[in-house]
Amino acid sequence: MQHIQWVDGQADDHPAWMDRGLLFADGVFESMRVQDGGLPLWSWHRDRLMQAIDSLHLPVSMARIEDHLAGHLAQLKEGVLRLTLTRGQGGGYRPRADAKVCLISQWRELGTGPSGLRATLLQQRLGHVPMLAGLKHLQKLEQVLLQGELDSHPGCDEALVQDIAGQVIEGVASNVFMVHRYVLHTPAIEQCGVAGVMRAWILDRCRRVRIPTRIRALEVSDFLNADEVFFCNAVRGIMPVHELLGRSMTTGVITSKLQLELAQVLRHA
Amino acid sequence: MQHIQWVDGQADDHPAWMDRGLLFADGVFESMRVQDGGLPLWSWHRDRLMQAIDSLHLPVSMARIEDHLAGHLAQLKEGVLRLTLTRGQGGGYRPRADAKVCLISQWRELGTGPSGLRATLLQQRLGHVPMLAGLKHLQKLEQVLLQGELDSHPGCDEALVQDIAGQVIEGVASNVFMVHRYVLHTPAIEQCGVAGVMRAWILDRCRRVRIPTRIRALEVSDFLNADEVFFCNAVRGIMPVHELLGRSMTTGVITSKLQLELAQVLRHA
Repeated sequence: MQHIQWVDGQADDHPAWMDRGLLFADGVFESMRVQDGGLPLWSWHRDRLMQAIDSLHLPVSMARIEDHLAGHLAQLKEGVLRLTLTRGQGGGYRPRADAKVCLISQWRELGTGPSGLRATLLQQRLGHVPMLAGLKHLQKLEQVLLQGELDSHPGCDEALVQDIAGQVIEGVASNVFMVHRYVLHTPAIEQCGVAGVMRAWILDRCRRVRIPTRIRALEVSDFLNADEVFFCNAVRGIMPVHELLGRSMTTGVITSKLQLELAQVLRHA
Repeated sequence: MQHIQWVDGQADDHPAWMDRGLLFADGVFESMRVQDGGLPLWSWHRDRLMQAIDSLHLPVSMARIEDHLAGHLAQLKEGVLRLTLTRGQGGGYRPRADAKVCLISQWRELGTGPSGLRATLLQQRLGHVPMLAGLKHLQKLEQVLLQGELDSHPGCDEALVQDIAGQVIEGVASNVFMVHRYVLHTPAIEQCGVAGVMRAWILDRCRRVRIPTRIRALEVSDFLNADEVFFCNAVRGIMPVHELLGRSMTTGVITSKLQLELAQVLRHA
């Protein structure tokens, strides 16, 4: 018995098949915008990575991660770089004593998105996993199923996603904000949801330019009564909603202001 | 720019790094006991796989899975076979139109376990993810963290794991049962937890041999007041608890009866 692994009927000993990211979703990732051979939002991604490394006890230094990125970043064209950190290869739920954190970089082009989003509401609801809330871990099976539901709504680009308590938490692949009477609101993400880099950047920028913000429990009705709604992520920036559940909306003043601020950091933001 | 993937500083184009199991935990697995070149509990694993394939809309037929297994099963010595099904390679949350379900088989030896378990109680709590409850999906990051907590209790082999509502759900790597006045009880797993193959086999066998069973919400105190407690999984069978939170216990009559029944199917059960 020479081979211990078969993939689709073929013996294949590649260590990637034993990676704990694949075996147990034991890792985290960052999807980062690449511009001019650099990562314009790197300091924000780094902060979130450091928090994840700490929460999940991943034995890796930021110096090693930055060395890894420096080794190929200059070769990259404008696009998206996914950086995945896993706890290494093999073992059961308990990692092997010699497991070494694995760093995976994957680049892809970034196509253009719509300038205004058409958004709906999904029926499937996010669970509550406080052990992992906020982390951008590899457990994205709920998002795959949510994307499948979104694709059953022709012409819709994003959706409000609720949790099992009926609170709006985020979009399928983004965080969500709404403006009501010149105050910017975004959902709390203590039970589930991702602490998005763009979300953090927006909250910080609002403090600097004195736009009042509130992080709180938000329901679907809050979004239906909002003056402005936008989704955001670190790759596509700020995406204003132009139609929410059949109701027309325009890009409002606060959304526009934040888009202008972001344009100083990201192109096509 | 020839390579789009780097792993630990090396260009590495192996498709496994693009597998949706690694990217998004988009798949399921079965850990199966191998004996005499066969899988003694296959019909139970097959039933659970069919349910997962259906719930997650994985486009794969049972005939293809059984062909894949037949291709290498006869070469396997006694041990454990992990069969992983992923939704294939590439894409974002939306799979590529040409994605093809990937079947991965991984064999390992099975070491001997203790004949009686020493069990504790963990502090970290399982979240509620009703979208995925019962499925043996690839999202095992909570289990990795739970195993880490268990390893901080020297000499303990397993633990009662509660959910965020304070109900006992399962062990770290097993389901859990308890006997009270000759009735076998096991937790309901509607909000979280895995519908274990051994759990299903035991509930079925109890019906046949007329041991009364109840599936219900169970608290830690129910286990402390139990006459018998055991953990179980499809690889290690039925594992009686001999010490629970410092309290000594022995292998009781119902546990022994079920072990005898199982021994007709699995060796070292």
